[in-house]
Amino acid sequence: MSTPATSHVDPLFVPIFGESIELLRKVLLTKDAQPFVVAGSGTLGWDMMVNLIERDDEVLVVNTGYFGDHFGECLEVYGAKVTHLRAPIGSRPSLEDLEQVLTGKKYKMVTVTHVDTSTGVLADIKGVAKVVKSISPETIVVVDGVCSVGSEEIRFDEWNIDVVITASQKALGVPPGLGIVVTSQHAMQIFKSRKTPVASYYSNWNKWLPIMNAYEARKPAYFATPAVQLIYALHTSLKQITAQSMDSRFEQHHQVSQKFKNAITELGLKQLAVSDEVAANGMTAIWLPDGVQVSDIVPSLAAKGVQIAGGLHKECAAKYFRIGHMGISVTEPQRGHIDKVIESLATTLKELKSKA
Amino acid sequence: MSTPATSHVDPLFVPIFGESIELLRKVLLTKDAQPFVVAGSGTLGWDMMVNLIERDDEVLVVNTGYFGDHFGECLEVYGAKVTHLRAPIGSRPSLEDLEQVLTGKKYKMVTVTHVDTSTGVLADIKGVAKVVKSISPETIVVVDGVCSVGSEEIRFDEWNIDVVITASQKALGVPPGLGIVVTSQHAMQIFKSRKTPVASYYSNWNKWLPIMNAYEARKPAYFATPAVQLIYALHTSLKQITAQSMDSRFEQHHQVSQKFKNAITELGLKQLAVSDEVAANGMTAIWLPDGVQVSDIVPSLAAKGVQIAGGLHKECAAKYFRIGHMGISVTEPQRGHIDKVIESLATTLKELKSKA
Repeated sequence: MSTPATSHVDPLFVPIFGESIELLRKVLLTKDAQPFVVAGSGTLGWDMMVNLIERDDEVLVVNTGYFGDHFGECLEVYGAKVTHLRAPIGSRPSLEDLEQVLTGKKYKMVTVTHVDTSTGVLADIKGVAKVVKSISPETIVVVDGVCSVGSEEIRFDEWNIDVVITASQKALGVPPGLGIVVTSQHAMQIFKSRKTPVASYYSNWNKWLPIMNAYEARKPAYFATPAVQLIYALHTSLKQITAQSMDSRFEQHHQVSQKFKNAITELGLKQLAVSDEVAANGMTAIWLPDGVQVSDIVPSLAAKGVQIAGGLHKECAAKYFRIGHMGISVTEPQRGHIDKVIESLATTLKELKSKA
Repeated sequence: MSTPATSHVDPLFVPIFGESIELLRKVLLTKDAQPFVVAGSGTLGWDMMVNLIERDDEVLVVNTGYFGDHFGECLEVYGAKVTHLRAPIGSRPSLEDLEQVLTGKKYKMVTVTHVDTSTGVLADIKGVAKVVKSISPETIVVVDGVCSVGSEEIRFDEWNIDVVITASQKALGVPPGLGIVVTSQHAMQIFKSRKTPVASYYSNWNKWLPIMNAYEARKPAYFATPAVQLIYALHTSLKQITAQSMDSRFEQHHQVSQKFKNAITELGLKQLAVSDEVAANGMTAIWLPDGVQVSDIVPSLAAKGVQIAGGLHKECAAKYFRIGHMGISVTEPQRGHIDKVIESLATTLKELKSKA
């Protein structure tokens, strides 16, 4: 990212942006889906669903926590009628429940949070897409992959996914500031045949599509100034990610996740995720042991150089904490990140228990 | 910006964001206006006017080019009825014309592009605000300051401005990727008393106001992940800008602009701006001499290490070029930017003429 400030029409920058768009297809294992890379956050990716929603469209949110709730709220702003299919904290709605709901009513869109950052629960997006498409092939399957792209298995074309929303700052390993949306040609057709105008200016794909097409054709274009330095960083990271096969990247994340989860089990800790099957590979949400507070454990680990997060789910935020294990912490084991976190966590728990 | 990746809730980052919000008030010479700093571009600032617009609200755009046209288009997406008060290329609508239009109809909002980047025309925002407020004190005066904040005189409170929209990448001297909006308490009251819900999710101030308030109180909060590294860069730049008085900064930009404009006049070149009074201090738009093309002059200067831009106004884009002179190029004369640009331009013109 430490590149000199250059114009977004600079001949050096244009191919960087263009190639980043192409590389996103490789990361998501898709031939012809359309990437959008826009200055903003992951939340802006939700906002871009305004392009696929018209007033009174029915949407089903396969909900595993905080992010499902808020994605649904976003869609309602744009006129969608949102139904939530929920599950208890730490688990996910079953495919049988999904099938039943889909049989009862026709939905234009089904959304699913791949990894709910608030609980560390992993959705079965392959299964969800299969169920949806078998009952209603035209329904748009939207995956919120903010906390999953780059760390969890996603096979966009093979699994019949229509939209993946993500952001720069998680397993793509880039500082925050880019909202990224990748859209199937099926969804682009639905977008192009909408009957009412898109209810947003900044999120409007009619504005962004010519820009993405231009940069991919190695020509500059202007709607809003792109975040040049962040796109340089994205380009570097996407080159690193695609230097190995995505299969081997998925496997690395799985291995490290298993190692980490075994280690916390040995420390006597319990995950929010109720089983291995529903646990994310890029992060772990962990119940606090009795007598330990978020306000103790976070600073104690920070003092050891380890940054973790408190809880986020509104029903139990004070009762758990979250640790990420993704990106270079996984793919560059020589950094020793994972071992350091495990050791520091063990020491911190010992210290806090001896104080209690 | 080259700070290690930190979380947006990191105790080191929280005061950086909080102080940046406070420093923006100093730059704009306002005591109590409300800044919003959001991952996005300057265009997102336009989008945020959705907070002040309800369906069928009347808006007057004091139009000096490309950016007035598109700002108007953005407001129409959110239901505004937009009237454009236009002027020929290179000039600006007179205050007399403005007065006449305002006397004929009541407008909820008047927008004015402070510096239209497409033409280098400077609006008289002090005069515009004075005319608007004298006829209709409740009308919201919105200044598009993307190409003016940090290089042109703006006295937010004294001049009775309600909204200034800007972005990180111009005279604030930060890489692109932050949309910035500063809003008067008068406009915040109008926002708070609106009758219909805000028609946007990502741009909704009901979401962002608690975040800005929290960070200013040195507490973290979450709606969407902030662009942490860009905010570090913004903080550094705002500290540098406010280390001197804004008056002296305005004067420096005026001096350098005069020097630059005198130099191009001596080279036999003519500005788009029809008089000194309507010419921006942070940039100059210049008609191409006969026989010289944009496609000749841009690469010739690039080869000398000088990056300039072609035309942007749809009616005459191929006939002119634009040169920025703002920020550190002005306040740090030891860099020699301005002299280098003048010399390179003189050499390039000589080369191109000898070829012709």
